[in-house]
Amino acid sequence: MKKIVLVFSGGLDSTTLLYWLKDKGYEIKTLSFDYGQKHSKELEMAKKTCKKLRVENKIIDLHNLKDILKSALTSEGQEIPEGDYQDEVMKQTVVPNRNMIMLSIAMGYAISLGFNRVAYAAHSGDHTIYPDCRPIFVEKIRELAEVIDYEPVEVLTPFLEITKADIVKIGTELGVDYGLTWSCYVGDEKACGKCGTCIERLEAFKENGLIDPIEYN
Amino acid sequence: MKKIVLVFSGGLDSTTLLYWLKDKGYEIKTLSFDYGQKHSKELEMAKKTCKKLRVENKIIDLHNLKDILKSALTSEGQEIPEGDYQDEVMKQTVVPNRNMIMLSIAMGYAISLGFNRVAYAAHSGDHTIYPDCRPIFVEKIRELAEVIDYEPVEVLTPFLEITKADIVKIGTELGVDYGLTWSCYVGDEKACGKCGTCIERLEAFKENGLIDPIEYN
Repeated sequence: MKKIVLVFSGGLDSTTLLYWLKDKGYEIKTLSFDYGQKHSKELEMAKKTCKKLRVENKIIDLHNLKDILKSALTSEGQEIPEGDYQDEVMKQTVVPNRNMIMLSIAMGYAISLGFNRVAYAAHSGDHTIYPDCRPIFVEKIRELAEVIDYEPVEVLTPFLEITKADIVKIGTELGVDYGLTWSCYVGDEKACGKCGTCIERLEAFKENGLIDPIEYN
Repeated sequence: MKKIVLVFSGGLDSTTLLYWLKDKGYEIKTLSFDYGQKHSKELEMAKKTCKKLRVENKIIDLHNLKDILKSALTSEGQEIPEGDYQDEVMKQTVVPNRNMIMLSIAMGYAISLGFNRVAYAAHSGDHTIYPDCRPIFVEKIRELAEVIDYEPVEVLTPFLEITKADIVKIGTELGVDYGLTWSCYVGDEKACGKCGTCIERLEAFKENGLIDPIEYN
């Protein structure tokens, strides 16, 4: 059986990827990361989905990284910007080098387990804003992953070239429970419906003629 | 002034690199990592050297990674192997993907600071045992560092092709206080003198006709 470690935020994209990997027959262990994000509700959702699918989930405590990594996602004094996901202002929500940090830990775990395979849910909608979701980043981290240990580690990114609407379509076919996913960056009890990630999410459901099952303010 | 973040263990190699960077005129911030290593005494030494040189030192708490990364350096039940540094048995002391994890955090910090430059002290004696100290690893992480953010990040490894004896020679000329460095993996009050890293260290001083100033059991 193919074995893999999934970087799993509990958001829409990585939850769909979890179902996708299960459907492909992978044995999966998931890693979630507490990096001091305001929307730590995604970690509760990650736990619930993993419990439902009987998949191991470990939360890695990196919350003290918020002292050294500047981002609106983690800074108490800085508000999450509203507006379109593609807007320049969304760059405030970049956590510098977040994906390389999470992937490097996932790779270390995969090596320790003898899995030698990791996955993460970068998709085409992220390319403009997040440097560490671009195809060139994926290409270079793949090349690095081949030489980080005595044996190469493989990096799977099956959603790299598709949109969030495509992901919702795939997930709906796979029976993903989107009520157990979280996207909003603000971190209130209900989703704000106004931040870039809420807008992108709502549009993805709308394009598929579907209603997002989570509650909005 | 050129600015840089140094991955700083408090060991002989990275302490020499700190002096080397200071000598070259860099403004330096250092990051040390608590990853549950038995020889956490190196972190005390890191603090002392930084205080002496008036350089900022932050310790990043990653001690819970020892639950997912298998290594004799962190496992309570597993003894540090004795013998030559080049021996196959030293592979037990590899912490899977440690350097990529530490460098990824250092790069995130460098981006947050607007420094866009990191350094670590890989040297030629590490190549056989540690995959993440080999020139091919450095080449690939350099290429990745060029695309992790909107601006490229530079990775400096000035000791990559020289030996530990060469490093001691350089450090002695720069006035490094080697009494404030720690190498032994065992983690006792005094260095064991028998583990691979102690043997490599003792030989490096001997080759330079010098006496290692730290105490051995």
